[in-house]
Amino acid sequence: MPNPILVEARRAALLESRHRGAVAVVDAAGRTVLVVGDVEQPIFPRSAVKALQALVLVESGAPERFGLSDEELAVACASHGGEPGHIDTVVRMLARAALTPEALECGAHWPIHQPAAQALAGAGATATAVHNNCSGKHSGFLCAACALGVPHRGYTAPDHPVQQQVKATLEALTGRRIDDEQRAIDGCSVPTWALPLSALALAFARFGNGHGLGSQRARAAARLRAACAAKPWHVAGTGRFCTEIMQRFGARVFVKVGAEGAFCAALPEQGLGIAVKCDDGAGRASEVVMAAMIARFLPINDAERAFLDRFVRPTLRNWNDIAVGELRLAEALANS
Amino acid sequence: MPNPILVEARRAALLESRHRGAVAVVDAAGRTVLVVGDVEQPIFPRSAVKALQALVLVESGAPERFGLSDEELAVACASHGGEPGHIDTVVRMLARAALTPEALECGAHWPIHQPAAQALAGAGATATAVHNNCSGKHSGFLCAACALGVPHRGYTAPDHPVQQQVKATLEALTGRRIDDEQRAIDGCSVPTWALPLSALALAFARFGNGHGLGSQRARAAARLRAACAAKPWHVAGTGRFCTEIMQRFGARVFVKVGAEGAFCAALPEQGLGIAVKCDDGAGRASEVVMAAMIARFLPINDAERAFLDRFVRPTLRNWNDIAVGELRLAEALANS
Repeated sequence: MPNPILVEARRAALLESRHRGAVAVVDAAGRTVLVVGDVEQPIFPRSAVKALQALVLVESGAPERFGLSDEELAVACASHGGEPGHIDTVVRMLARAALTPEALECGAHWPIHQPAAQALAGAGATATAVHNNCSGKHSGFLCAACALGVPHRGYTAPDHPVQQQVKATLEALTGRRIDDEQRAIDGCSVPTWALPLSALALAFARFGNGHGLGSQRARAAARLRAACAAKPWHVAGTGRFCTEIMQRFGARVFVKVGAEGAFCAALPEQGLGIAVKCDDGAGRASEVVMAAMIARFLPINDAERAFLDRFVRPTLRNWNDIAVGELRLAEALANS
Repeated sequence: MPNPILVEARRAALLESRHRGAVAVVDAAGRTVLVVGDVEQPIFPRSAVKALQALVLVESGAPERFGLSDEELAVACASHGGEPGHIDTVVRMLARAALTPEALECGAHWPIHQPAAQALAGAGATATAVHNNCSGKHSGFLCAACALGVPHRGYTAPDHPVQQQVKATLEALTGRRIDDEQRAIDGCSVPTWALPLSALALAFARFGNGHGLGSQRARAAARLRAACAAKPWHVAGTGRFCTEIMQRFGARVFVKVGAEGAFCAALPEQGLGIAVKCDDGAGRASEVVMAAMIARFLPINDAERAFLDRFVRPTLRNWNDIAVGELRLAEALANS
């Protein structure tokens, strides 16, 4: 049976497009709070688990050894826009470990943030690895390698000690064994491991309140959450969903987008983890679903509800800024 | 019953995302050649019908009156990349009717073609309406208004004579009546009318060989097809699907992409029209489906098949140019 339609794109009076997918909401003890669609099928979480990958950085001792700031820990969890402040943070973080952007193995792309890309082009410069939205995560891997005393070159390979620790961390948080056939290569060349939404939601519930993690890992998670809550601009950037949500809700919500319609979040005070995947990979739809889940499971006041409504039911505007349609929750999800 | 999965996105050994949708292939007499999914549900064809909208331009007498070139007729059918050659063509076309880009009502966006956008930013300039991918179509509407002797201002409104003629032309080609509730506003602010894939495929079959159009309209269609076959770069641009296909196959294929996963084509020698819509609006999937339909219904040699295979089964590469996965036809379509 196919996953249900989660989000509809309407244009004037008609349905133009629709997005299917699945959602899991789980508490830190592993109890299911909400399931929509197939949440046992493994999916690639992609960048949605950057904060879990960054646990290896914190547990390596790198933050103390290199004196990493909240901004630097936040950018290690980021899919950043490549804005000048992001670039400065990444370069500074690498410098603390006596490294330069030449050590980055993520590949180059133009800044996601269009004005930043245009400014770069306007200055006659070109995109490099530091502009890659994953350069903060990669700087985290590099600092972790240095702190662990292993060669940093080749840190993207699946058998490198840093990636092996990432895998072990994901296995511990999700409670699932990860086999080789679940491994693929991510856009930035590190491994991405497929896991079910139910397991990802559990991992984020635990990341959110430390339940069942052991005291060292629970402290590492708390440190990353605090850094992202303090510096949400560094986790994404100007006008971006993750930044706007965490700017508004602070430590009450940790949320992170991934490619191909993946999205994960933790509601620490509720002890809940949320994992979303749109079947078709559409980020616009997974964003609507995630906003709706936050509005549903986080106790919020009227102003906060109005704030979230912009994301739960966004108006689609054309090049003349005319409202031409909207995205909205489909019935299956609205009534689930 | 949901539409079947048409295209799968695979990453390493696993299915990462999937795209559902529908396809109609119809001959110019209205006989169904292939139906996959629901082809009677109205869909917004968006820019996929620009060539049908441009029939109004040709039938207005504007090409003779203003001496329009093949390049200008092709750009009137285009979703162009905003490359310098496209901009020059649009400006020249407007000048033939004593107009300037200030008359364009499409709204501004940065060139789709990234190097063109970067060059524009690099020159310290900003995007204007002429860079909008629809500026050629809008120049066609403006020239048509001038040739018809009606005010060109407000040519994007549904009750403007040019848009009324577009609607009547779509009704004639599809054989369907279009009601007001089928109308929405397109990205460039002109009306877009929802029509079933079966009707769109019929319209393109007729556009392809003139069957049932009457001699004047058949000549207008032939002129537009010839212009696009002669100047396919003007219909899209460097590296774009529509351009590459028409550069390779010339007058044997007319093909045009639309937003939100819409795609239409004509195979004039076979007398066939093809219409595709991906449920989720994914252009990457509708492109795979369209390439597969061309490979299936156009008689091709081995070299042409190898050429099309690049589009039927594209390799997905990451920022380090590593092959990380592929798009491929799902079984429902491969076996249909």
